[in-house]
Amino acid sequence: MSTTDAADDGSAVLAVAQRARDAATVLRTLTREHKDAGLIACAAALRAHADAIVAVNTEDVSRAREAGTDEGLLDRLTLDRSRLESIASALEDVADLPDPVGDVVRGYTLPNGLEVRQVRVPLGVVGIIYEARPNVTVDAAGLCLKSGNAVLLRGSSSAYATNAMLVEVMRRALMETGIPADAVQLVPGMTHDSVKYLMTARGLVDVLIPRGGEGLIRSVVEGSTVPVIETGVGNCHVYVDRDADIDKAVRILVNAKAQRCSVCNAAETFLVHADVAGRFLPVAMAALRDAGVTVHGDDRMRPYAEAAGTPFVPVTDADWAAEYYSLDIAAGVVDSMDDALRHIRRWSSGHTEAIITDSQSAARAFVAGVDAAAVMVNASTRFTDGGEFGFGAEIGISTQKLHARGPMGLPELTTTTYVVVGDGHIRE
Amino acid sequence: MSTTDAADDGSAVLAVAQRARDAATVLRTLTREHKDAGLIACAAALRAHADAIVAVNTEDVSRAREAGTDEGLLDRLTLDRSRLESIASALEDVADLPDPVGDVVRGYTLPNGLEVRQVRVPLGVVGIIYEARPNVTVDAAGLCLKSGNAVLLRGSSSAYATNAMLVEVMRRALMETGIPADAVQLVPGMTHDSVKYLMTARGLVDVLIPRGGEGLIRSVVEGSTVPVIETGVGNCHVYVDRDADIDKAVRILVNAKAQRCSVCNAAETFLVHADVAGRFLPVAMAALRDAGVTVHGDDRMRPYAEAAGTPFVPVTDADWAAEYYSLDIAAGVVDSMDDALRHIRRWSSGHTEAIITDSQSAARAFVAGVDAAAVMVNASTRFTDGGEFGFGAEIGISTQKLHARGPMGLPELTTTTYVVVGDGHIRE
Repeated sequence: MSTTDAADDGSAVLAVAQRARDAATVLRTLTREHKDAGLIACAAALRAHADAIVAVNTEDVSRAREAGTDEGLLDRLTLDRSRLESIASALEDVADLPDPVGDVVRGYTLPNGLEVRQVRVPLGVVGIIYEARPNVTVDAAGLCLKSGNAVLLRGSSSAYATNAMLVEVMRRALMETGIPADAVQLVPGMTHDSVKYLMTARGLVDVLIPRGGEGLIRSVVEGSTVPVIETGVGNCHVYVDRDADIDKAVRILVNAKAQRCSVCNAAETFLVHADVAGRFLPVAMAALRDAGVTVHGDDRMRPYAEAAGTPFVPVTDADWAAEYYSLDIAAGVVDSMDDALRHIRRWSSGHTEAIITDSQSAARAFVAGVDAAAVMVNASTRFTDGGEFGFGAEIGISTQKLHARGPMGLPELTTTTYVVVGDGHIRE
Repeated sequence: MSTTDAADDGSAVLAVAQRARDAATVLRTLTREHKDAGLIACAAALRAHADAIVAVNTEDVSRAREAGTDEGLLDRLTLDRSRLESIASALEDVADLPDPVGDVVRGYTLPNGLEVRQVRVPLGVVGIIYEARPNVTVDAAGLCLKSGNAVLLRGSSSAYATNAMLVEVMRRALMETGIPADAVQLVPGMTHDSVKYLMTARGLVDVLIPRGGEGLIRSVVEGSTVPVIETGVGNCHVYVDRDADIDKAVRILVNAKAQRCSVCNAAETFLVHADVAGRFLPVAMAALRDAGVTVHGDDRMRPYAEAAGTPFVPVTDADWAAEYYSLDIAAGVVDSMDDALRHIRRWSSGHTEAIITDSQSAARAFVAGVDAAAVMVNASTRFTDGGEFGFGAEIGISTQKLHARGPMGLPELTTTTYVVVGDGHIRE
């Protein structure tokens, strides 16, 4: 790539960001009614252009197949009519959600008569950097529009034509409802430099949300001067306490690992208290074997795995650190809850940790002792999810501590303003 | 500085950060009672060691004076007995505030019976990077302890001996109350590299809060991979609307500019609607003159300034951008509120914007049209302050949009965990 291309990308990205900024000025003043009309118009337009969108997507998929892309990625890239219908109806679901903008978070009157209200307002311009799934293009646009934000979308090059068409269809629908088309824009240029310009567009872009693998997230965090919300990295643990109900523990462990193993809220390690290992492990190993799980265990796990015929590999530090996203699980026997807590503190990614126990004091100590976005007591780690939590929509699961932690819904796409009303008040 | 020094600083900073991390594990489980006892013990210890602290500070001040430090900075560096007493009693005030940790932000039961509670928990390890004032050392330590966080303090080299003694006195007091001394630590090393190690200690440090001038804040934002909360940059505007009450407008403008001009919530620009300029400006110019203010105004301002004998300089773009922190103010006449909003959007630092108007619709349009941490209607910009807002304490005023915006009190030093309690719940 020549220097000229990079410079072109730079000015093109900044121009797009400036247009987003201008659109954001209008978006923050739109009524809920107007934004919902825009969402519904987008859904209708996507349905009306379904054939053309599917055709363009088929070309993206063919090009990716010729380039040797693996089947999993090809599947995530594919948009057929039924997936497109789900995407369109998700926009209508977002229209049904309450508008977070204008929500009064706190309000009170000071002794001097000043009325203070802390009110939710849009963030402004939100940048989303994501990988192959074209549904993110529409989902993110819908959530940002509903929360009054302009969105800059930076998908993967393999989905570029599909994303470009989805965005074009939505932009036209917005214009027809009197909403600035620049509420939804694709970041131009597919070079690495175009991302870099996005990541350093302080003052134009208010927040970046990377959605994808650990490599993507790390590169955004390290290269960005725009504030970043990290999402979706999960090394989740299930701790089976001495006072666990064995049946519940086995059911939760298998669910947490195997119900859907390719997601960030799946369990990647389980730890069992030595006092209950003899009762728990024979049942657990059989259940894991039946679910097709390979156990990466310590020496105390081995005999139980062998007895049950569960696939077994000796555990290493790489296993404790791993997010397998596969039917593998690291496993160890611990002599106390303190040992379990120390292990979790060392290896946790701060996503979701679960304890299975019937002891109030154990549950209390575990909740106090781990530091994560979500702590489950006698429930599967798989519940850490915006949909399950009743948020109606989710832009991602934050694993950082600032601004938003855990599933992020519409309120997490806002900031606040203190509106203070006086009657000539001055400070003495 | 040799490479060896830098490497030494690096490992020393990381060792200190690791000790803070370990202390944070204990701090998050402390009761309010225990933390308050620590705060009160620190206050008592500072009083008991007042003579020694003042003596060390006197040496810091002498060294700074010999190095040619200006009088304003020397004053901020100085700690006499009365200032030390204020600092100690501020710790006791913090003890009186409610504990934000454990506060349930939201709580509900899902249709499947899962009980979801979003609970405030400490951030973990907070780094504060600040300039000369040694009171920040104690204030920040107190607020972080109350909110269950370990703090890493990185003050200026000119206050090093004072800060080291303040920290040592507090650490000993904490130990005596059974709180880990490493709850409060000074970052070792005064080289630029020691700050760099702090700014890149991801995983050990949860958030950095720079407090000081724009240069300090910019360098932390640009050099840090640890999340940063920006504080305290304020280019605040006062807009006098066509429907303003003249007396209130003059009183508020003078208060916003001149009551204390060296702070971030002082006004730096005023804009007046052309329709009211003829009535407002003669009174305003006289009042600004009496308050010792120099007006940097546009051509339409000049005749009013000259008639009142108010010091006048033609305004430039540098003035619109300036945070004077002095008795200077930029000023312009606008033909409409839209012009005022365009001006503010272009030059605002997003701190505080004020409108003076008796019109409901004008107030509504202004609040909707500006994007700032605080918007004042008929009140002085000087009210944007944790103390004035009734927070009882303030770690700084955030001018960014993520996590905290506006005055930051104790709740802003926390994050949340979703605690989810089930009874064997699995996801279908």
